[in-house]
Amino acid sequence: MTERTGGKTSAGVDPLMLGRAIADADRRAAHALNLVPSENRISPLASVPLGSDFSNRYFFNTAGDPMFWEFRGGEDIAHIEALGAGALRRMASARYCNVRPISGMSAMILTVAALSAPGSTVVSVDQESGGHYATPALLTRLGRRSRLLGCENGRVDTSELADALAPGDVDLVYVDVQNCVRVPDFGTMSDVVRRVSPATRLYVDASHYLGLVLGGLVENPLACGADAFGGSTHKSFPGPHKGVVFTDAEDIDESLRSAQFDLVSSHHFAETLALSLAALEVEHRIGDYARTTNDNARRLAAALADAGFRVHGDSGTGYTDTHQVWVALEGPAAAYALSNRLAEAGIRVNLQSSMPGMPGVHLRLGSNEITFEGAGPQAVEELAAALVTARERPLGPRTVSGIRARFGPPFYTDPEKLRVEAGLCTC
Amino acid sequence: MTERTGGKTSAGVDPLMLGRAIADADRRAAHALNLVPSENRISPLASVPLGSDFSNRYFFNTAGDPMFWEFRGGEDIAHIEALGAGALRRMASARYCNVRPISGMSAMILTVAALSAPGSTVVSVDQESGGHYATPALLTRLGRRSRLLGCENGRVDTSELADALAPGDVDLVYVDVQNCVRVPDFGTMSDVVRRVSPATRLYVDASHYLGLVLGGLVENPLACGADAFGGSTHKSFPGPHKGVVFTDAEDIDESLRSAQFDLVSSHHFAETLALSLAALEVEHRIGDYARTTNDNARRLAAALADAGFRVHGDSGTGYTDTHQVWVALEGPAAAYALSNRLAEAGIRVNLQSSMPGMPGVHLRLGSNEITFEGAGPQAVEELAAALVTARERPLGPRTVSGIRARFGPPFYTDPEKLRVEAGLCTC
Repeated sequence: MTERTGGKTSAGVDPLMLGRAIADADRRAAHALNLVPSENRISPLASVPLGSDFSNRYFFNTAGDPMFWEFRGGEDIAHIEALGAGALRRMASARYCNVRPISGMSAMILTVAALSAPGSTVVSVDQESGGHYATPALLTRLGRRSRLLGCENGRVDTSELADALAPGDVDLVYVDVQNCVRVPDFGTMSDVVRRVSPATRLYVDASHYLGLVLGGLVENPLACGADAFGGSTHKSFPGPHKGVVFTDAEDIDESLRSAQFDLVSSHHFAETLALSLAALEVEHRIGDYARTTNDNARRLAAALADAGFRVHGDSGTGYTDTHQVWVALEGPAAAYALSNRLAEAGIRVNLQSSMPGMPGVHLRLGSNEITFEGAGPQAVEELAAALVTARERPLGPRTVSGIRARFGPPFYTDPEKLRVEAGLCTC
Repeated sequence: MTERTGGKTSAGVDPLMLGRAIADADRRAAHALNLVPSENRISPLASVPLGSDFSNRYFFNTAGDPMFWEFRGGEDIAHIEALGAGALRRMASARYCNVRPISGMSAMILTVAALSAPGSTVVSVDQESGGHYATPALLTRLGRRSRLLGCENGRVDTSELADALAPGDVDLVYVDVQNCVRVPDFGTMSDVVRRVSPATRLYVDASHYLGLVLGGLVENPLACGADAFGGSTHKSFPGPHKGVVFTDAEDIDESLRSAQFDLVSSHHFAETLALSLAALEVEHRIGDYARTTNDNARRLAAALADAGFRVHGDSGTGYTDTHQVWVALEGPAAAYALSNRLAEAGIRVNLQSSMPGMPGVHLRLGSNEITFEGAGPQAVEELAAALVTARERPLGPRTVSGIRARFGPPFYTDPEKLRVEAGLCTC
């Protein structure tokens, strides 16, 4: 046990002390303010299944069929997956909801496999326009032809889209815009697809703005003519790291189920239960959560712009229609100095090397998590002030607790209530 | 909020009570004996990260590069992923270890994408011979041609394999045997591949017997000439639901990294930390664990056979070389009666509709989890006696506690030690 690994010997590594380091870092994380648009903080209730024995188990018997208990242990809670899917369906106004993908990328692989054939062409949005970095390479690796489309401020060039569809070999238009302050215009895209290539499927990967769609702030892709939409469940929607796909079409639901059987197998039961609890817990306030998330993003953007930060967008259009706020910085050194000072104080920001229409290093901020935790106007103003200060000097040790003191009630159930009313351990 | 879902209204659903039902089921699960070869029980130490804030976070900076903190929060624990990968590499005697797949199927998609081109042929083992049910359909969906091979008692027909390779269009031989009491003969397969089609890659999906390979009980595929091996980390290896891929070849490691970038993105940081802790915790006893797992499987098989169960294999060859024991039953009604009586008492078995060479409903038992928890000869004998009794009548309420009383020390760190020495909460 003295073999070397990266300069350390395994004899010098005590797994207990590593476990303790993780627990210590977790305690610090509990107080941190996260401004990362691709992350959210799962609620104490929704996190109950994550460390449970169900993280060790397979589970396929959602219907509770007494003759389908190949894998046991979930008998008393089998109905919870369907209850959660019901809540998601209601929020999405969708007839079908597939909760089997185990991540956003798993949902992407699943939908590409289900809705396009090998050898066909799949149209997606180029990265410079906010498209997901991985889509073109993923498509090529899966034997599809990738064709990219520009998208500016949520508008695609309709003649460019029509040209892409004209050859008749496009099985799927996969709208994968992730980095956006303006949501793509699904309705226009759908009109072009229906007119030029009616057999082509239109899918919206709404990973980043899923919570905003479910909350009614962003137009529902299905209502705009998309065949299906979905994505990861842990960005503007406050769920675990999982994926979900919605559709109104029975044949598409069937295609997804068939592909899921071949490509997913176990759908990570603990996370699926967590997604159910997250959905049922937030369902009656998802509209308020989505609206407040965008209100906070606009307020944060305005406050930073007023203080001299170069913020994407302008006050006339409220800077952003989503949870994202983009702030250009003066090169990597200044960016890391700012990010480090903020991290030192417990404020965690996301650095990106460029954003659509704004080259160079950026803050890609998200209001989704602080909103879930209860941030309102006052907290956002103080947070903006902290970012302004951190450009120049370190922040005081009570900065985060001061901001947290301004928080209102969160959008999740109080841990004390979980303890008292349901006897749940939330240590 | 009164829309119907599966006969219940959402107004009648209290998420707190669902959370409580999950916590209650989890408490019962703590005492259950699981005899499912595809599941294991993660240790209390390795489960520390699962419910932590790191389940909410992205993390890509394994090297701790001070200028690569796009996503923050993991600064103090960034080294743990690499330490865990080091432990896995040592156990696998492999130069490279990729811990990015988020499941066994994710590892399958990753390796197929990395080691074969769209349009090429991939050879795998047919389901009737123990091959994974999903492989052929997965390959077809990913634009590969699937060709299936028989395998009996771990031996492929070498001329059948040579014929499959002869056309020269096989990029990859993917050995996906999951249901096996005899491990495939990798060496012979490698000899044929090297002779007939040297450019073809040989990959071993060792999901089921991964812990037995790492413990030295099953021959290491790399030592037998395979280019890479890997699979899920939660069957005979006692880790979380994740995937891993090992290789000695730099170019294959590079291909895997490249494919992982396109197909995985976030690798589920909490589960990755859990895998690290699991690997570091079990490293110095993995050989003992693997050997005891097989000893227990053979003892269980022999005891069941002696009591009149129809067990696959025979006493001359010890019934099984792995953690799996297959027991034929007298049709679905008898199978469910047995499974239900066992479940009622807290003993969970896996029913399968057939096994290679044994048609009809079966128990597919695994000794891996009870061994991890400390089962030895006495416990296994009592467990076998309980299965015998359950054929006829319900088991007594103290059956499981009686069996557990025979357990020796587990292969993981005592929870009390975690509490006292590392201050870790294990409630």
